[in-house]
Amino acid sequence: MESQPSRQTETHYDIVIVGAGPVGLMLSTCLARWGYKIKHIDNRAEPTPTGRADGIQPRSLDLLRNMGLKSAIMAHKPARVYEVAFWDPPKSGEGIVRTGTWASCPNFIDARYPFTTLLHQGLIERVFIADLKKNGVEIQRPWTIKGFTSDEKADPEYPVTVDLEHVDGTAKETIRAKYLFGGEGGKSFVRDQLKIEVKHKDPISYVWGVMDGVVKTDFPDIKMKCTIHSQHGSIMVIPREDNMVRLYIQIASSTDPDFHPRKTATTEEVQASAKRILAPYSIEWERVEWYSVYPIGQGISDKYTLDHRVFLGGDACHTHSPKAGQGMNTAFLDAQNLAWKIHAVEAGFASRDILKTYEPERKDVAETLLSFDNKYAKLFSQKPDASTVKSATSGQQSAEENEFIKTFKEACEFTSGYGVFYKANALNWSPEHPAQSHVVHPTSTRLVPGRLFINADVTRVVDANVVHLEQEIPLNGSFRLFIFAGKPSVTAQALKDLAINMSRKGSFYQAYTRPDVDTVSYHERYNPHSLFYSVCTVFAAPRSSVEISRDLPPLLARYKDNVYADDKWDRRFPDAKAAAHAKMGLDEEKGGVVVVRPDGYVGIVVALEEGSATVDALNQYFGSFCTKKLGGTSAQL
Amino acid sequence: MESQPSRQTETHYDIVIVGAGPVGLMLSTCLARWGYKIKHIDNRAEPTPTGRADGIQPRSLDLLRNMGLKSAIMAHKPARVYEVAFWDPPKSGEGIVRTGTWASCPNFIDARYPFTTLLHQGLIERVFIADLKKNGVEIQRPWTIKGFTSDEKADPEYPVTVDLEHVDGTAKETIRAKYLFGGEGGKSFVRDQLKIEVKHKDPISYVWGVMDGVVKTDFPDIKMKCTIHSQHGSIMVIPREDNMVRLYIQIASSTDPDFHPRKTATTEEVQASAKRILAPYSIEWERVEWYSVYPIGQGISDKYTLDHRVFLGGDACHTHSPKAGQGMNTAFLDAQNLAWKIHAVEAGFASRDILKTYEPERKDVAETLLSFDNKYAKLFSQKPDASTVKSATSGQQSAEENEFIKTFKEACEFTSGYGVFYKANALNWSPEHPAQSHVVHPTSTRLVPGRLFINADVTRVVDANVVHLEQEIPLNGSFRLFIFAGKPSVTAQALKDLAINMSRKGSFYQAYTRPDVDTVSYHERYNPHSLFYSVCTVFAAPRSSVEISRDLPPLLARYKDNVYADDKWDRRFPDAKAAAHAKMGLDEEKGGVVVVRPDGYVGIVVALEEGSATVDALNQYFGSFCTKKLGGTSAQL
Repeated sequence: MESQPSRQTETHYDIVIVGAGPVGLMLSTCLARWGYKIKHIDNRAEPTPTGRADGIQPRSLDLLRNMGLKSAIMAHKPARVYEVAFWDPPKSGEGIVRTGTWASCPNFIDARYPFTTLLHQGLIERVFIADLKKNGVEIQRPWTIKGFTSDEKADPEYPVTVDLEHVDGTAKETIRAKYLFGGEGGKSFVRDQLKIEVKHKDPISYVWGVMDGVVKTDFPDIKMKCTIHSQHGSIMVIPREDNMVRLYIQIASSTDPDFHPRKTATTEEVQASAKRILAPYSIEWERVEWYSVYPIGQGISDKYTLDHRVFLGGDACHTHSPKAGQGMNTAFLDAQNLAWKIHAVEAGFASRDILKTYEPERKDVAETLLSFDNKYAKLFSQKPDASTVKSATSGQQSAEENEFIKTFKEACEFTSGYGVFYKANALNWSPEHPAQSHVVHPTSTRLVPGRLFINADVTRVVDANVVHLEQEIPLNGSFRLFIFAGKPSVTAQALKDLAINMSRKGSFYQAYTRPDVDTVSYHERYNPHSLFYSVCTVFAAPRSSVEISRDLPPLLARYKDNVYADDKWDRRFPDAKAAAHAKMGLDEEKGGVVVVRPDGYVGIVVALEEGSATVDALNQYFGSFCTKKLGGTSAQL
Repeated sequence: MESQPSRQTETHYDIVIVGAGPVGLMLSTCLARWGYKIKHIDNRAEPTPTGRADGIQPRSLDLLRNMGLKSAIMAHKPARVYEVAFWDPPKSGEGIVRTGTWASCPNFIDARYPFTTLLHQGLIERVFIADLKKNGVEIQRPWTIKGFTSDEKADPEYPVTVDLEHVDGTAKETIRAKYLFGGEGGKSFVRDQLKIEVKHKDPISYVWGVMDGVVKTDFPDIKMKCTIHSQHGSIMVIPREDNMVRLYIQIASSTDPDFHPRKTATTEEVQASAKRILAPYSIEWERVEWYSVYPIGQGISDKYTLDHRVFLGGDACHTHSPKAGQGMNTAFLDAQNLAWKIHAVEAGFASRDILKTYEPERKDVAETLLSFDNKYAKLFSQKPDASTVKSATSGQQSAEENEFIKTFKEACEFTSGYGVFYKANALNWSPEHPAQSHVVHPTSTRLVPGRLFINADVTRVVDANVVHLEQEIPLNGSFRLFIFAGKPSVTAQALKDLAINMSRKGSFYQAYTRPDVDTVSYHERYNPHSLFYSVCTVFAAPRSSVEISRDLPPLLARYKDNVYADDKWDRRFPDAKAAAHAKMGLDEEKGGVVVVRPDGYVGIVVALEEGSATVDALNQYFGSFCTKKLGGTSAQL
């Protein structure tokens, strides 16, 4: 019936995604790679032509790399912000002087890319769009959503009905879907239809002017991120690719006596204002690429979903000032968080309940973001003196660590993305978690469930390549098992027992064996046994001493391309024999097992012991949210 | 006369390049970027589809990065070889055992990318071809050269006449050119026409079989570079992109009693042989991508040019075994060496005599390559024991350094590309050079004229980006002046004097001022004053303490985007206050000036002194090969 496809395939989709900004594109890109059928629409005729969000924070660059998209973004030669400079009026006289600088991602954060990447949002969008195309997804433009219903009782498989329409009204479609996602930005139709309210964190709101352009100036920090206070007003400078610079100017605040949210200013007015603020330095525009005035309030959605079928994310859920460059980054993480959970449910691994962790995990981060946005604004006004900033950025611990430094450190960690964390739930172990045994969460470990796995350099055994361990499993929707295997002579039996117990019927690992396990390609590197797990093993031994077929039982040796030697020196642990073990706070002889969620956050840490205790604990952990009862009988595979 | 372009523009080119392999493409790419009119032909209908050279050595990757081509190459996810493994028959019994491994680019080499990059030559060619297209050059295929003459007396400007023909004889062209380049590989028509002989270094020649394919094997080092000796013969393993592996098998040697240079072997014979050699490990082919048998001798051209108008490069000049993975790398350097010299002459900067340095510089490297190729072959046969290799690769100096280790170190340095050096001539200062004064070549410096500039991390002042200093000037055909400016308080006067003397009429710098200097864009970063010089200044001071407009005279401050702080810690000089100064062996207070040739090799090192001595010495240096008399009067600009 090739010429007459069933109505089902024409109109039934796994998900309808509305909006092709950062949040929609990230969600779409993940799900497309994992094989889902996607209807993705956007009401704009083409990707963002100019302006909008432009900051990619350090940790987001890790994420993009994990998706294989970083090099396409870096090919556009974005600006990189390593430091922020503060300019204020001098103690006496006119003009402005630099009062200090600080690192945007200081040394105390163990970042791979300790800088913010600045690139026009349209170029970033196009990188995702090109990737989507490879997976057969095209954004349908300019189309918009006209209505939707969600009724699980009427259709438990495809409960969502969505009406779509070309923006000029010339065409319509009605789609049945498992999910609907609203990533339409601040003015979300989906959110409005659900009657979800936006709470305003701070009664103060602002009108900002933002101008992208190419300038000619003798202001020495024009290629740095700068906050400039002067007698004539304040301005924020953000460098961009292609010699561009973005200027943010606050045009009005709701605290102004004559405040009006529709207050505006012309290009010429903003330029004249910038000239006054920057004096005695001169500034002239060679070209203005984009100019916009918009009111910003600190808002947060009451809910991110009502029924766990229709979800919101990105600016539809949270709005805030552009000062900390967080918008796109928060959007990416909203989408990534939801993507792997939908996949875990739809692929038959996790119970539908894990979808309930999306809102609390991401809303909590948004709340933190809004608080920081507030604090950040105050920090910027505080005019910190240079010596305080210096001690804050040096990464040295000192007794006299004051409130300012503490706030600063937390702020840097949060805005870099490395400080984002998720609270205890079924996915993020805590003392209240059902997984309870003496092997769970060894006291020495520096890993924290709900926080990011720590970066570490190791040597891959098969090809002696020095690699970033945290990047060795791509964003493939699988949980990542990092087996820190300590000294081979010490852990030989524990590794055998681990493999035996992983192979047992009803273990977390065996229970989700691929149906096609017997015909999987010899070259399958990440998912030879199960689509839900990828395994890496790290020995605390020099590479040349590791023999994979001798040191690992066959189940683990199957992942031969993911076996590593922890033999690279690390400046943060200069005396450690096995720096990666040391960074994780795991015993260099006895090791330990770390479960990392598909999005890179630690799920649980378990000691590596002889006998069944290690796998028993993992069964308890995964059993708390997966679809099958795990553990139990001891019949072997 | 748009419809009737003059005969001159149709048939007159700056250069005709024959052959679009690595050497031709590198030459073409450089010259196209610098604005030359190029006729580039190749007798193949399309780029290399499979097989051929595939190794990019560490230093070549630096070069490709300097051209902005590295990321396009790395996007193909090439294999990376960090170590070489040796397999030999065991002391007793059958089969093979690993007897040692060594780093392919050990620690004692200060490489940015301490690995060999393995990628199919066709993909590398396409990266160049795409870049050429951006500059308006298309390879004319499949076309061949039928004849040429060169007569400077008849036409001093376009002395070369070249007859080109479509390979099927259906079309012909006659071209007038300033230069002709033969980069056609071992069977060079241009070389044959010039009656240049190929000398065979070693009377022994070999027949090799080479097979690219995807295999299934339990041999543990299949992703490493391996040399395997067994009772059943020898084999070399080279990992490749996309799970491929290349096997080299020696099929015949001229030392065999029944040697014949046309001896061959089938795919099946080579596979059967490989199976015997690898036993007890198993190997099966899933797919063979390419298989070829070819005789190899160690040959070198007597001459690279006769008249400095018609040049040869790449395999047309030197052939050798593929063991050390040098072919493409040597080709790149031949082309780069010739490219900038042609540019320096044609742009009116250097006297035509510098073209005479191409042959001795590059032929000397080829001679060294052939010697190493010989030594390498012997090293591979010697079966070094693991402890010797270990002490060689650790980078530790030891009293008992034996001949083997010495050879090994030299070999590694040479094959990595970091050991390639050029002997003394007008471009590479030596005690015999016309530039003679007390400021020339400070005794402390670790830089050697004719060797590569040393890699160093520094912080760019304008944007606080941590950068690789040696990459800060792209391959733009300009000489690079690295002004190590020491402590600003110490060198203030010396820097002023440097700028004053650089601005004087008839100085090396002023004499080659751009004709359009008054209308150069504010955003021109590398060549604001002269097309022949780019300037970088490095202060031995923390970034935040450097004020460009205060610490540098206007001439040097114009290069504000190329001003750096030498404030990054370097593991090789952990106690240095200014690690880049220390690495160069320049005084951390007083600095020094380093002239680097457009290809990254050091030309001369001069102390930075108050008064005119520094510029006087630079005038002498450049005066020895440029078109104008430099120095002399003291009239100011």
